[in-house]
Amino acid sequence: MPGDSIGKMFRVTVWGESHGSSIGTVVEGCPPGIELDMNEIQKQLDKRKPGGTGPVSTRQEQDRFEIVSGLFEGKTTGTPISIVIKNHGFTKNNYTDLSDVYRPGHADFTYQAKYGIRDCYGGGRSSARLTAPVVAAGAIAAQILAGGTGFRILAYVKKVGSVNSDIAAGSVEPEDVQGSSVNFPDREKEGEVLALLKKLKRQGNSIGGVVECVVENVPAGFGEPLFDKLDGDLAKVMVGLNGAKGFEIGAGFSSAELTGEQNNDEFAVENGKVVTITNRAGGVLGGISTGMPIVFRVAFKATPSISLKQNTVDSDGKSRKIQIKGDHDTCVAIRAVPVVEALASIVICDHFLRYRGQCGVK
Amino acid sequence: MPGDSIGKMFRVTVWGESHGSSIGTVVEGCPPGIELDMNEIQKQLDKRKPGGTGPVSTRQEQDRFEIVSGLFEGKTTGTPISIVIKNHGFTKNNYTDLSDVYRPGHADFTYQAKYGIRDCYGGGRSSARLTAPVVAAGAIAAQILAGGTGFRILAYVKKVGSVNSDIAAGSVEPEDVQGSSVNFPDREKEGEVLALLKKLKRQGNSIGGVVECVVENVPAGFGEPLFDKLDGDLAKVMVGLNGAKGFEIGAGFSSAELTGEQNNDEFAVENGKVVTITNRAGGVLGGISTGMPIVFRVAFKATPSISLKQNTVDSDGKSRKIQIKGDHDTCVAIRAVPVVEALASIVICDHFLRYRGQCGVK
Amino acid sequence: MPGDSIGKMFRVTVWGESHGSSIGTVVEGCPPGIELDMNEIQKQLDKRKPGGTGPVSTRQEQDRFEIVSGLFEGKTTGTPISIVIKNHGFTKNNYTDLSDVYRPGHADFTYQAKYGIRDCYGGGRSSARLTAPVVAAGAIAAQILAGGTGFRILAYVKKVGSVNSDIAAGSVEPEDVQGSSVNFPDREKEGEVLALLKKLKRQGNSIGGVVECVVENVPAGFGEPLFDKLDGDLAKVMVGLNGAKGFEIGAGFSSAELTGEQNNDEFAVENGKVVTITNRAGGVLGGISTGMPIVFRVAFKATPSISLKQNTVDSDGKSRKIQIKGDHDTCVAIRAVPVVEALASIVICDHFLRYRGQCGVK
Amino acid sequence: MPGDSIGKMFRVTVWGESHGSSIGTVVEGCPPGIELDMNEIQKQLDKRKPGGTGPVSTRQEQDRFEIVSGLFEGKTTGTPISIVIKNHGFTKNNYTDLSDVYRPGHADFTYQAKYGIRDCYGGGRSSARLTAPVVAAGAIAAQILAGGTGFRILAYVKKVGSVNSDIAAGSVEPEDVQGSSVNFPDREKEGEVLALLKKLKRQGNSIGGVVECVVENVPAGFGEPLFDKLDGDLAKVMVGLNGAKGFEIGAGFSSAELTGEQNNDEFAVENGKVVTITNRAGGVLGGISTGMPIVFRVAFKATPSISLKQNTVDSDGKSRKIQIKGDHDTCVAIRAVPVVEALASIVICDHFLRYRGQCGVK
Repeated sequence: MPGDSIGKMFRVTVWGESHGSSIGTVVEGCPPGIELDMNEIQKQLDKRKPGGTGPVSTRQEQDRFEIVSGLFEGKTTGTPISIVIKNHGFTKNNYTDLSDVYRPGHADFTYQAKYGIRDCYGGGRSSARLTAPVVAAGAIAAQILAGGTGFRILAYVKKVGSVNSDIAAGSVEPEDVQGSSVNFPDREKEGEVLALLKKLKRQGNSIGGVVECVVENVPAGFGEPLFDKLDGDLAKVMVGLNGAKGFEIGAGFSSAELTGEQNNDEFAVENGKVVTITNRAGGVLGGISTGMPIVFRVAFKATPSISLKQNTVDSDGKSRKIQIKGDHDTCVAIRAVPVVEALASIVICDHFLRYRGQCGVK
Repeated sequence: MPGDSIGKMFRVTVWGESHGSSIGTVVEGCPPGIELDMNEIQKQLDKRKPGGTGPVSTRQEQDRFEIVSGLFEGKTTGTPISIVIKNHGFTKNNYTDLSDVYRPGHADFTYQAKYGIRDCYGGGRSSARLTAPVVAAGAIAAQILAGGTGFRILAYVKKVGSVNSDIAAGSVEPEDVQGSSVNFPDREKEGEVLALLKKLKRQGNSIGGVVECVVENVPAGFGEPLFDKLDGDLAKVMVGLNGAKGFEIGAGFSSAELTGEQNNDEFAVENGKVVTITNRAGGVLGGISTGMPIVFRVAFKATPSISLKQNTVDSDGKSRKIQIKGDHDTCVAIRAVPVVEALASIVICDHFLRYRGQCGVK
Repeated sequence: MPGDSIGKMFRVTVWGESHGSSIGTVVEGCPPGIELDMNEIQKQLDKRKPGGTGPVSTRQEQDRFEIVSGLFEGKTTGTPISIVIKNHGFTKNNYTDLSDVYRPGHADFTYQAKYGIRDCYGGGRSSARLTAPVVAAGAIAAQILAGGTGFRILAYVKKVGSVNSDIAAGSVEPEDVQGSSVNFPDREKEGEVLALLKKLKRQGNSIGGVVECVVENVPAGFGEPLFDKLDGDLAKVMVGLNGAKGFEIGAGFSSAELTGEQNNDEFAVENGKVVTITNRAGGVLGGISTGMPIVFRVAFKATPSISLKQNTVDSDGKSRKIQIKGDHDTCVAIRAVPVVEALASIVICDHFLRYRGQCGVK
Repeated sequence: MPGDSIGKMFRVTVWGESHGSSIGTVVEGCPPGIELDMNEIQKQLDKRKPGGTGPVSTRQEQDRFEIVSGLFEGKTTGTPISIVIKNHGFTKNNYTDLSDVYRPGHADFTYQAKYGIRDCYGGGRSSARLTAPVVAAGAIAAQILAGGTGFRILAYVKKVGSVNSDIAAGSVEPEDVQGSSVNFPDREKEGEVLALLKKLKRQGNSIGGVVECVVENVPAGFGEPLFDKLDGDLAKVMVGLNGAKGFEIGAGFSSAELTGEQNNDEFAVENGKVVTITNRAGGVLGGISTGMPIVFRVAFKATPSISLKQNTVDSDGKSRKIQIKGDHDTCVAIRAVPVVEALASIVICDHFLRYRGQCGVK
């Protein structure tokens, strides 16, 4: 059973390898008759693209997408939307001497162990390059949801190393994120982040981080217990993200320290709508959306590609020392921001369509 | 698209409500010819069952399972294994005055919002009672894996409130857990946990906690990138567990504060097998098992059922004050221990069979 | 990947073996708030049950169903509906000497070849007994559809051996079928059928047949090309039925002999609705329902259980002669009638909910 | 739930429309390490391509495929194989005046009814053009199976109109098919077929037909009862084929007229292997392969695109007369031959991998 897709009603299948001629996605289940805003899709892809500044990789990725099916006179037809993104601007040279050695923290060894063969260029299938088509698909999901529910999503860097943004989840505005080269909304601490990244970059080292995401205007009722819960499905795609090592929703791990009295969100009615006074649940109860903002965080480890000398072994089991060449992100969490938005959009769109099928028309 | 199943090759579908006549599961995809150890299944169910002591609910749950299909002369036939567990020993009285009011922290409101109707007794479908069939199914998965790989799984309470066990992941033995009425392996701090639980129970309050799980002897190669990664699938079922609010693997959220140099696990060869010197990855790289122990943690919020007075609303939108009756767990994390083991076994067994199908026979 | 389910939005999973303590089904995806008519479900089960008359098996099957989950005060809750049917009134004695021999025309050999083990009593998993839970699930599907679309389904025996009913598809009424002990609507030829069955029964032989099914009031638009087409999905479940060897829709195999001019159904408008003047398509074009009646036929081979002497081999590869004991249907097509209705209802209900999810709300 | 895929372990997703810039498929679940024979894939595509002779459409389809992912140094890597086929050599002019009218026998009306929008050029998504990527995917499936089981598949035209080939299923050789411009293996009757096609072509009319397919060297044990039976899955994809109206396996519809004594295939042992003396079952019992040749037939209606005048309606419900322009196949069954082979290969490969996962390694 292959695992190249997300979603059941809105299904996104991603194909390709880092250094192949192209990468892409087939998006199935998009409702018909939607006029897609191509600029919006490109805008999200541009957010994912590495810039020329220090913090992120300077690899030249021209992420121009092409939609080659599923549209008729600019509108979706309900049939699969095939998106192709050409690969170029890279060189395979950085990887030739890595073809038989396992980079620490990377998936070289596990792909070899699983498949007995692997594409060694740029990490092949395991490269974060494959998040580009995910971002394009997510931008479509967000447009479907925006039409249906007024959906609004915003992710940003919450933490880099031990520098934590002090802006509360509900108070971050899109401008706060766009105005920062490192997607960090806390202006007072942004300098600290930049200095840290600069220092590590110079050392050839890298650092972990945390991304926070807030989704507003998701109606109550999305999520399919017992096992396809909305929070469970978000956790799955987020922990599956390159470099991700943890997921928490609402109060998350800190809720372990709270009592029931402290943690329960009391219900009230506001403007005729049931709400919770607080939102420690993070917008999900029993795996179903409450109608309150969905708030979650994803922890990322440091980029494993560092130019410091590391011990490892090669495919013959011989000890090797490696230093990874090339220009890599110092903190993958920063570039993960639009990918987190895309994956959350896809998951929520999928649950929107599932809800419509089973419960939406009484 | 209903969400009542886990797994693709090894599929577990769970049916039932807390206070119906019975609950159960259909387990599909179990390979044929396996002689099931029924005592082992009952033992896991007994671990989940509330005891008569303070920390966990004293509700009388006689979790006797019956396998009504899929076996021939004690061996699996490769056809669906249907397991039925009768419900008894409960009273619906505790819930009759809750039929139109939304308990804070529970799924009453979201089920009502989604389905427009809900079974109000004992939480109906959203009850933790539904984890009993999951535990039975998990015990079967563990037996399949034990035959195939020497699989060994151990979960325990890592933290209750702010009391943290200081025993390192690799050092906990099954006896350390079984010897504790609260599944807490740190003998020195167990008294602290018991005192905390006793105090909260008396107050009618509850507390959160963290469960840690270590899985050994999972060969390298399980997991299906890009999107059905082993860690992603674990995250999905764990965050979907009643009361769970977070999941982390290996160094998890703490890896956000580490540099690449600190966090990368260097490879070495030991007894002819590729290993990592450290295991901050928690046994998974690129979504595929490395062969090292899989180590993860799940954060649980406090039991939302507290007997303290809480504000809420009813289905007419009127303000209400409620005090929840009945005997509830003070800390759900404690009873979640065998459920975490069961869910992890199911996920890993599913990936074992998927691996066999695509990569296992060259 | 287990294959024990039909449907994606409306999913029916069937468990059990012919001579186990019970058999059953888990029905997922039923929309909430539907008041199920239990008598209607029982009525369909009774149609499947063998009567005491000659043509069908006299095995005593008391098919009383019990719904043990998914209902609250008589209404569906949107959660899985678990249905259990007890097995009784059978004896295992007829099968003990068949435990190591392969009955011609049965699945004994193929189950053994696939699983290396099989339940030999009454055919175990491969028994037509397993169609009982399918009929119960189908009766639920039909009720969902009746509420949504005015759905009306009618199957009957079109042919037994070479005796063909001359009543045209659209002209058969439910009474014509119910009034016949062999579900054969052509009163003039019914005697011929009964005489044939009687003769074969006496000889210990059996005969094949064809079932025809007409489904009315299915709106245009159900079916999911390219590969989950409505006719394809019908074909799959029908050919998968015990003893089925063929499926055709509309003009079917006879369309192979027609020219385009003869076969094309011209469009017209009637009462403001697009219709086709003729219906050689059988209600489906391009895999999507046209709104015209869906008409299809299923060919069944003769019951393989005959009491005439047959040559075969046993599990050691030795030649054996067998004579099958017990009271078996002379023509399985007759009892297949309510099962064909059930399977068609399930498939169409599944497509109804899929349609609602993707296209139903613009 | 979108329906753009076939298979569960070996999954083929097809995207594109007849007159878009390209069409393609994503093939998931291909085992790693297989050296693909590209010529073999092209050969199958060429068989599907219309030639320049009378019987089939003269539309210029240059079906050159490109594999853009999933290969490393010529070998499969176990990751998705993305195949792109450029569209060219067509003109949209033939379709502009058909944009608002429903062609009889085509899917114009049903796509419009379902999606509320449709790509009118060349039938858009419903075009037989979309079988090109299916053929490429099927050629990969056949190579996987050939490596594993010595798999051998052969389809051919059994019947055109009422001209039936008299060569028995087991006696047709690949040369008999390749040597015929109409894939008709009966040399004596081929002239009759050609004359019929020529006459109908001149009249602007078309004709139906039947394709027969024989698959050898499929081991016993493939198929997943109760509902993913091998014959059921074959029926689904075959009936879903453009223009298909029926499917039968083994004796098929003719088995309805046989008695149990006539129809049952007796078992015997030959060269240490269990076989059946006859093969009226067509290689499948109880939904599982027997190890005997799989023999099935698919009925096709006449090409609905005829240049004779037909009555129909347009999207405003007005009566219209149309004559379809362009050069269309006189008998679609002829060109369906390689597509039938491809779909059967895909289904059997899928079941091969499912078998390996659940039952293949004891």
